[in-house]
Amino acid sequence: MSVRLGDLAERSDCELRGDPDVEVTGVATLARAGPGEISFLANPAYREFLAETRAAAVILAEKDADRCPVSALISDNPYLAYARVAAVLHPQPPFQAGISERATVDSSASVAPSAWIGAGSVIESGAVIGEDSFVGPGCTIGSNAVIGAGCRLVARVTLCGDVTIGDRVLVHPGAVIGADGFGIARDGDRWVKVPQLGSVSIGNDVEIGANTTIDRGAIENTVLESGVKLDNQIQIGHNVRIGEHTVIAGCVGISGSTVIGRRCMIAGASGIGGHIQIADDVILLAASVVTSSISEPGTYGSALMHDEARAWRRNITRFRHLDEMARRLRRVERRLGATDGDKENPNG
Amino acid sequence: MSVRLGDLAERSDCELRGDPDVEVTGVATLARAGPGEISFLANPAYREFLAETRAAAVILAEKDADRCPVSALISDNPYLAYARVAAVLHPQPPFQAGISERATVDSSASVAPSAWIGAGSVIESGAVIGEDSFVGPGCTIGSNAVIGAGCRLVARVTLCGDVTIGDRVLVHPGAVIGADGFGIARDGDRWVKVPQLGSVSIGNDVEIGANTTIDRGAIENTVLESGVKLDNQIQIGHNVRIGEHTVIAGCVGISGSTVIGRRCMIAGASGIGGHIQIADDVILLAASVVTSSISEPGTYGSALMHDEARAWRRNITRFRHLDEMARRLRRVERRLGATDGDKENPNG
Amino acid sequence: MSVRLGDLAERSDCELRGDPDVEVTGVATLARAGPGEISFLANPAYREFLAETRAAAVILAEKDADRCPVSALISDNPYLAYARVAAVLHPQPPFQAGISERATVDSSASVAPSAWIGAGSVIESGAVIGEDSFVGPGCTIGSNAVIGAGCRLVARVTLCGDVTIGDRVLVHPGAVIGADGFGIARDGDRWVKVPQLGSVSIGNDVEIGANTTIDRGAIENTVLESGVKLDNQIQIGHNVRIGEHTVIAGCVGISGSTVIGRRCMIAGASGIGGHIQIADDVILLAASVVTSSISEPGTYGSALMHDEARAWRRNITRFRHLDEMARRLRRVERRLGATDGDKENPNG
Repeated sequence: MSVRLGDLAERSDCELRGDPDVEVTGVATLARAGPGEISFLANPAYREFLAETRAAAVILAEKDADRCPVSALISDNPYLAYARVAAVLHPQPPFQAGISERATVDSSASVAPSAWIGAGSVIESGAVIGEDSFVGPGCTIGSNAVIGAGCRLVARVTLCGDVTIGDRVLVHPGAVIGADGFGIARDGDRWVKVPQLGSVSIGNDVEIGANTTIDRGAIENTVLESGVKLDNQIQIGHNVRIGEHTVIAGCVGISGSTVIGRRCMIAGASGIGGHIQIADDVILLAASVVTSSISEPGTYGSALMHDEARAWRRNITRFRHLDEMARRLRRVERRLGATDGDKENPNG
Repeated sequence: MSVRLGDLAERSDCELRGDPDVEVTGVATLARAGPGEISFLANPAYREFLAETRAAAVILAEKDADRCPVSALISDNPYLAYARVAAVLHPQPPFQAGISERATVDSSASVAPSAWIGAGSVIESGAVIGEDSFVGPGCTIGSNAVIGAGCRLVARVTLCGDVTIGDRVLVHPGAVIGADGFGIARDGDRWVKVPQLGSVSIGNDVEIGANTTIDRGAIENTVLESGVKLDNQIQIGHNVRIGEHTVIAGCVGISGSTVIGRRCMIAGASGIGGHIQIADDVILLAASVVTSSISEPGTYGSALMHDEARAWRRNITRFRHLDEMARRLRRVERRLGATDGDKENPNG
Repeated sequence: MSVRLGDLAERSDCELRGDPDVEVTGVATLARAGPGEISFLANPAYREFLAETRAAAVILAEKDADRCPVSALISDNPYLAYARVAAVLHPQPPFQAGISERATVDSSASVAPSAWIGAGSVIESGAVIGEDSFVGPGCTIGSNAVIGAGCRLVARVTLCGDVTIGDRVLVHPGAVIGADGFGIARDGDRWVKVPQLGSVSIGNDVEIGANTTIDRGAIENTVLESGVKLDNQIQIGHNVRIGEHTVIAGCVGISGSTVIGRRCMIAGASGIGGHIQIADDVILLAASVVTSSISEPGTYGSALMHDEARAWRRNITRFRHLDEMARRLRRVERRLGATDGDKENPNG
């Protein structure tokens, strides 16, 4: 596809400095872009590549515009503008409507005329597939599941029975939505399964990564509000609720019945315990472990930094005696007499 | 389904206080239950909802019975009684026996007449599917794999060749049982694959969560004993053995050749190293890292608590000097002369 | 299969002490091996089983040969020699070439005459499957994906569009290669998807574990160089590059744009942040968290050891005051006058 630079500027809300009639055919990095390609500068780490770029144009902030040797699309948010430009230049290819001869669709299921059901997919009784939704190959859609309009299940996605997803939801391969939550009741030495009778309810404009799992509720539903974005290999326990526009990076686990607020950002490999509340606008740093509620917006962490193994081993060995060290320090302070430290550190 | 309250009390071993002839049709939470629905109180956090509940009846402990405004089913273990009541009111729907026209079953495989093989599933040579077992859509069952009676492979489950599972085993979508273990031998700078010649042996009444993986053994088998319950996204390495009635929450990884005892409870996001032994009745708290054997029953942890980011950063920076702090503290104590602390802390 | 001991010694580069004409039919552990079986001793923990073994022969190091009661195959690297012997005795069974009637292959795809496409697999337009490659049941191969020669996709593997893999690549069930990376741009309170326009490029002799996910690049490709070995449930973010012969154990997550060197060994459950560089020959210990670059070869760790819960709780509570403890220690040292400690600990 070829688009005029002037059109790209308009569609990405940028101010153009340069020739609006230049034709652009694709995106590339600053270092690799050639004529006909557009690039962007959002991360200062890449500023060194700007002077030498051979791109047709660069999307960047006002403050970098003077150093731009080629046409510039100036934006307050160059990364967002890049996202829009890239979507214009590389649109999702259209798909043919219909049902593959190799798909298996129950006679009581409803598939919109503009939808596609791929080879090897199985649509069970009463399921509903909305207009313009794409169900790629190898998906299984359980009884009475409902998929809204304009969704895309890329391939090999499983929706269990009764799950509902809104409009424009994108689900990557291997994701499982609506498997039983982990509900077991102790019976002496054994465990008895607790039926998982709720379902999963997902809003609009949600993205769910590859091999991510979202469990159905025990009685009521597990809920992802609109605009939630989940990366790969995330585990969401039963009856979790995730607020609008919260984003979660890969390999995060969230235990059952926890409520996450709106606009949170949860970094990769974090683990969040069950039955707790996380406020709106909370940022968790990488590999955080959270087992009690967080009531204030802000940034939180818990992971240690890596260290060279010998130093690491010495320090973790000392850690096992940290409480004792604290008591010894207190004793030393007492021997030296009451100090300012005493007042500052009532728990010392 | 509608069931008399008296019947529910009997089938859940509860003492009934109320009218045995009331008909109950479903379960609900205390806050949401309406007439015809039964609820339960097991977690004290929800006691506040008891007084206002509109449920037909509530399953609860003797100590809460006086505050119950409606009929009561009294149990020493209300959550277990609830599990039984829910199973009566919401039984797994029966399935039709047979083989979908869209399933591919090798002529040398054996499928019991009462079993079901779903669309898109592939059953390879010599595999055996037992009576009343349900193989949902999109499963692949490798050569000579054996599935006992009354099992349920929900959808998109993979059993590799020679894997055996017992009776009443429930496997959720995306689980992979019997893929090669991670066996590689160093050859200079390169790595050579070590053939993984064992298989996986799973007992009765086991549950395996969505996208969980259980590797086949290198020479002998990986073993899950009866009654083991695994949540989602768990990784079990080759030649691991997990004892009866041990339960493991989501996102746990267990490295090869480790032996876990019976009745253990392993919380989410924990990691357990290879070639170690965990005793019976061990409880691991969330996100524990265990790289040496645990020989005594008890509760163990290793994760730090989350903290506000500035405090967290200051503390983790200090942690890199913890060994040095310990030596400095020791030096201070020595300057103050021999103290009680010296005797208490031989490793100080 | 039955092989002469002399042939096994030759094919594994071992020195034979014993009768070369003995026939061996399989491998077994030292403790379980019977006549006709060969075993090995590589881990000293199993040396106690040597004296009593009933194996036909044992692969071991020169230093253990005198204690071997049966024929010995002597090697500098017994585990590598075992890997070779096991591959001779238990070769991958050959497969029939062709395309299952239950596979769906687009007319524009190219499948080599010696390849196999299993039931339920879907090969999209323009995809290329090389000579002697095996695509097991339930796989989905996206448009223009290219699979080299001698590859094995065991079952239920997804390759998204344009992904290329080299020769002799082994991919286990549930793996997803080429799903969109997690690229989102903030737009006020919302997030806008950034098109993921790169792909994934995988070299030769790579192994990819069950349910592992490797995201496609944002603009350029995500790259795994030849000889990389990945265990199960690993997440590789967009534009990551992993150097030759690096091996990664299960449940590791690597965030976007990070570059990992050659011959690294990354232990299970580790998490590596985005946009960082890890040098060649780095070893990360189990459950390490790495959020800054590592420029020197060596061994690194960050995880704490497990501890009994009461001790653990006391120590993690003190950890929240570690910075304060360090400042108090400093104050105590100052009160005692300038010491050697002062000079050693400028950051104290």
